[in-house]
Amino acid sequence: MTVRVGVIGTGMIGEDHIRRMTAVLAGAAVTAITDVDKDRAAAVAERFGIQAVHATGRDVIADPGVDAVLVASWGPAHEEYVLASIAAGKPVFCEKPLATTPEACARILEAEAAAGRRLVQVGFMRRYDAGYRALKAAAGDGSIGAPLLAHMAHRNPAVPPTVTSEMAINDSVVHEIDVTRWLLGEEITAVMILAPRRSRFAAEGLQDPMVVVFRTASGVLVDDELSVNVRYGYDIQCEVVGETGNARLANGGAVAVTGEHGRATAVPADWRVRFADAYDEEFRAWIADVAAGRPPGGPSSWDGYAAAVVAGAAVRALRAPGWTDVPLRDRPVFYGVAGAAS
Amino acid sequence: MTVRVGVIGTGMIGEDHIRRMTAVLAGAAVTAITDVDKDRAAAVAERFGIQAVHATGRDVIADPGVDAVLVASWGPAHEEYVLASIAAGKPVFCEKPLATTPEACARILEAEAAAGRRLVQVGFMRRYDAGYRALKAAAGDGSIGAPLLAHMAHRNPAVPPTVTSEMAINDSVVHEIDVTRWLLGEEITAVMILAPRRSRFAAEGLQDPMVVVFRTASGVLVDDELSVNVRYGYDIQCEVVGETGNARLANGGAVAVTGEHGRATAVPADWRVRFADAYDEEFRAWIADVAAGRPPGGPSSWDGYAAAVVAGAAVRALRAPGWTDVPLRDRPVFYGVAGAAS
Amino acid sequence: MTVRVGVIGTGMIGEDHIRRMTAVLAGAAVTAITDVDKDRAAAVAERFGIQAVHATGRDVIADPGVDAVLVASWGPAHEEYVLASIAAGKPVFCEKPLATTPEACARILEAEAAAGRRLVQVGFMRRYDAGYRALKAAAGDGSIGAPLLAHMAHRNPAVPPTVTSEMAINDSVVHEIDVTRWLLGEEITAVMILAPRRSRFAAEGLQDPMVVVFRTASGVLVDDELSVNVRYGYDIQCEVVGETGNARLANGGAVAVTGEHGRATAVPADWRVRFADAYDEEFRAWIADVAAGRPPGGPSSWDGYAAAVVAGAAVRALRAPGWTDVPLRDRPVFYGVAGAAS
Amino acid sequence: MTVRVGVIGTGMIGEDHIRRMTAVLAGAAVTAITDVDKDRAAAVAERFGIQAVHATGRDVIADPGVDAVLVASWGPAHEEYVLASIAAGKPVFCEKPLATTPEACARILEAEAAAGRRLVQVGFMRRYDAGYRALKAAAGDGSIGAPLLAHMAHRNPAVPPTVTSEMAINDSVVHEIDVTRWLLGEEITAVMILAPRRSRFAAEGLQDPMVVVFRTASGVLVDDELSVNVRYGYDIQCEVVGETGNARLANGGAVAVTGEHGRATAVPADWRVRFADAYDEEFRAWIADVAAGRPPGGPSSWDGYAAAVVAGAAVRALRAPGWTDVPLRDRPVFYGVAGAAS
Repeated sequence: MTVRVGVIGTGMIGEDHIRRMTAVLAGAAVTAITDVDKDRAAAVAERFGIQAVHATGRDVIADPGVDAVLVASWGPAHEEYVLASIAAGKPVFCEKPLATTPEACARILEAEAAAGRRLVQVGFMRRYDAGYRALKAAAGDGSIGAPLLAHMAHRNPAVPPTVTSEMAINDSVVHEIDVTRWLLGEEITAVMILAPRRSRFAAEGLQDPMVVVFRTASGVLVDDELSVNVRYGYDIQCEVVGETGNARLANGGAVAVTGEHGRATAVPADWRVRFADAYDEEFRAWIADVAAGRPPGGPSSWDGYAAAVVAGAAVRALRAPGWTDVPLRDRPVFYGVAGAAS
Repeated sequence: MTVRVGVIGTGMIGEDHIRRMTAVLAGAAVTAITDVDKDRAAAVAERFGIQAVHATGRDVIADPGVDAVLVASWGPAHEEYVLASIAAGKPVFCEKPLATTPEACARILEAEAAAGRRLVQVGFMRRYDAGYRALKAAAGDGSIGAPLLAHMAHRNPAVPPTVTSEMAINDSVVHEIDVTRWLLGEEITAVMILAPRRSRFAAEGLQDPMVVVFRTASGVLVDDELSVNVRYGYDIQCEVVGETGNARLANGGAVAVTGEHGRATAVPADWRVRFADAYDEEFRAWIADVAAGRPPGGPSSWDGYAAAVVAGAAVRALRAPGWTDVPLRDRPVFYGVAGAAS
Repeated sequence: MTVRVGVIGTGMIGEDHIRRMTAVLAGAAVTAITDVDKDRAAAVAERFGIQAVHATGRDVIADPGVDAVLVASWGPAHEEYVLASIAAGKPVFCEKPLATTPEACARILEAEAAAGRRLVQVGFMRRYDAGYRALKAAAGDGSIGAPLLAHMAHRNPAVPPTVTSEMAINDSVVHEIDVTRWLLGEEITAVMILAPRRSRFAAEGLQDPMVVVFRTASGVLVDDELSVNVRYGYDIQCEVVGETGNARLANGGAVAVTGEHGRATAVPADWRVRFADAYDEEFRAWIADVAAGRPPGGPSSWDGYAAAVVAGAAVRALRAPGWTDVPLRDRPVFYGVAGAAS
Repeated sequence: MTVRVGVIGTGMIGEDHIRRMTAVLAGAAVTAITDVDKDRAAAVAERFGIQAVHATGRDVIADPGVDAVLVASWGPAHEEYVLASIAAGKPVFCEKPLATTPEACARILEAEAAAGRRLVQVGFMRRYDAGYRALKAAAGDGSIGAPLLAHMAHRNPAVPPTVTSEMAINDSVVHEIDVTRWLLGEEITAVMILAPRRSRFAAEGLQDPMVVVFRTASGVLVDDELSVNVRYGYDIQCEVVGETGNARLANGGAVAVTGEHGRATAVPADWRVRFADAYDEEFRAWIADVAAGRPPGGPSSWDGYAAAVVAGAAVRALRAPGWTDVPLRDRPVFYGVAGAAS
């Protein structure tokens, strides 16, 4: 059975997922699309041979030739389309963020609960990266004992000068928020931000670098360095420290070249290179779940909600010394036990 | 356009490729299969929802619902099915070996030339591995200067006691034969085998380990250690040494775990783990070429023929001291310039 | 010229330094020793052929056959012997801590200033480790741009159950305090302690692990994980993050062994193994300075004082949320510019 | 007791060892020197405060103020001075080669046997390198099973255009000859040379690179790449392959720097940097043995003789295809069991 997917938003990420479902992965066909930029939608439809170009996202969701929905529009529109997909009873993959406020995320939780079944998956692709999966395995199989700490770093080569600290938290740190919750299998309960000396590449309004510290329910501490103008590449570090050992992303590169610059391995140029396989794997799993009529096994509405609440607390922490609490509602039984792996 | 593939041979590898084309990759459907074990063919058809189970490979090739053929039967049957596919004008992917003798491979060359277009791709999947591709890039982009030497190692955890030196060359060393030709972009002209002290795990009739030395047309020397009972895992090493630097497979693993065994990264358990992504990439490229009506961009009949001739020389070298020449015919213009990357 | 050294305290560290100056390094002879345990002092004198065993440290300092003094007694006695050495006009190497309180350290500063020349070196041996020296070079030569952050970890295999958080700061974290000041070439102005979930190996009264965060005068932030019961070995990590790159201790081990535990390098069993070469180099440099009549080039009284003040602030920070200020007096011109490398 | 050392030859290596014994290591004093360049000898004596500058090496050996002799003159003079030292009953450290011909080495063996005690140590410093020592430990402690193969590479940044293949074997490959014998604890019985395409940096008369293959008594095969114009640095590789695992020099560098050139560790600029600690350790051990009146624990006359015979066979192998036998005489019982570690 081929899953017929309707795509709302055909910008860079939307188009890349269309390519993925059309030219890379088995089991899916993109049958309808829409975009606020009509010309762009038409061009994408032409490029990938997609029959229906609709006027609105609601039309895509309503299309009887659409089995499942991918929401890749800009963030403020996510809530509307996710809710409409739930209302239509169609599985929906929503790129991060699930919605732009905790309240909007909560409305999605409620709608999904009312629908009586889980229909939503959120696009936290790192859970599908081979490195992070090996890290989660090591953290869980006794190799390093019970986790006590984690050290993370998220380094981007550059960001536009319009990016603010708030945007950096919502766009970048949110990945470590999800990774923390997933790796450790528990909720983040407090967050603190430490502000070092700024990089000369940091535009006004941007604390770059920053160190975001998370505390989880059991007391594990996570320090996450966010540096968004490192110039040299996209460099993601993660180490989990347990009672009797530790495990870290090896990030070793495919080859080591020895020559005038010493013995060197390459650093990925950007996140598309670093997580190319993770995106493929993420959609492969989602398509398989949809085809099988199973609830999606990836990040749920709850994960999207929790990430939004923690990110919101982190934004407040930018202006508050010390710990800022994370005001998370109780986890509905509907979403299963915290920390279950995707 | 979906490429409809007929599969001859549904053993372990054949079935894995069926799974790949059915459940992993876009653009292909397996529409007909056959196997000498009829029950097995029926079970595979059931498992993957394949409609036609034919009595013979020739029936698969003749099936009008088959656009392209995958030959995954045992080696001695390869020639017949490849020739029949060429005769039918259908693209054919043949698992290694292309055929079991240089003469049989030569007949395929001639048939393909007579057909007037390239239809055959041979299953040397390492060309699609990210590590080997980065190695080829480094060898070609000036990072290490002109290649002078290469050092390789091919280590298997274990082989059955029935495996002989000849079989080890034809099944395992053949990969380094293809890699050597492809990485360096030239032919192997002579081969020598050095026989060290044998492992206590080597059964009678098997020289394990052995060092196979290749010399190429321009004089590059390649030493390849084949060890097939190392117990600890599947460990593939490759280093190209150039005039001003060198490049090697990093083989670093996804995570480094520090604990009672020091700071360690995992070694893959077997070739399926090590080359899983390469197999996917290999078929993705082949399906795309078939769909586009292009000649296959991967290893050609010529590559299959050359590998067979070199492997044959290596087998003779088992019993001859010093260099054994590789009696390669002239490369038909039809196959383009030696060393062009896939 | 052979430097004649008198040693006060012949416990484990004192004896090891005697061995170093007697059997390993050129240019020094140990001519007089003392210890509160007279039998031990006698046995050490016998073992290394040392002529004079004195009743007290003051006798060692006063001995006309002693050119320079090594203080390796327990901490509370350091002040007395360092002051007496200064009063005698003799160079003195004092194992860390310089003294057990900031006030005592300040008295040493004043005595040294009154003496009109620098006579004191403090035993922060990491400054002589090849890894840390390469790190300081990278941080200073433009390879990584201006430092903004540093991430450190100090992991001991085990500590006795009597060790408290205060002791762990004064004995272990003090090394990262000195490293931070030296690597970055500036003072620490504030400190914060974050307390994660405790290891099951942590005895009562010990926060293990803890994360100590330092802020320097220019705003560089340093997070230092202290874990003192990791079981697997002695594992020291340090990464300096600059505006355009970063540098970290490679800690790679001398050989990589591939086998049933993957591809592994060893972790040192303890600090003696890890810093054996650094101790040698530290004394080689000190002996050369003394022989040449130069002021010692290593960590000064000021460094010992500053470390004590920061460690004191860290101890207070154990019970204070947020940042605790470091009440450092003004740096006397006498000690040169902050951050000059040893 | 201070060992009074007389040094014959104060060229680059001789002077460096004088510095080492004077300014670095405990237990030795250089009391007499000589050199064919009288001005140079005088300048070195001045620089290091050495009292006696003699006219000839024989005068140095005869000097009653000399307990032990270091021969660091040019190779052709080694035999004479080693024999004279033996005749004088004085321990002698001879830089490699022990002598320039197997016959000359054999005369030394005979003289030492006639003297009735071992007095000679040969300067194969790699046996004192931490990496090689860890490799020997791994090869011997069961971590990798019984050794079957070894892969080595010896890469120099550049050599003068006057260097020939014969000189490269005698000066460079001789290190791997000694390492092979020592690591594996057995003799080399045959050698073969494989000549790849030459580097554009290779002067006439020099096969660069070359691969030298050794076969040991038990059948272990060692392939050693010698490349002497790699430009980028001094790069020494060694991997021992056993039945169940393998161990290799990690060569990881002290720090990893991540920036515009990827994630890189440094390669040593030359052999002095790479083996600085090994030279220190080598002399520390020799001085201790001399002081204790023990036979030297390092490479013996037998090791020097065996290296010369193997190197001679390798030179002949330059012009002989296939294996060239190593015509080693029987090992005198006097030198103990083959393969005992230093």
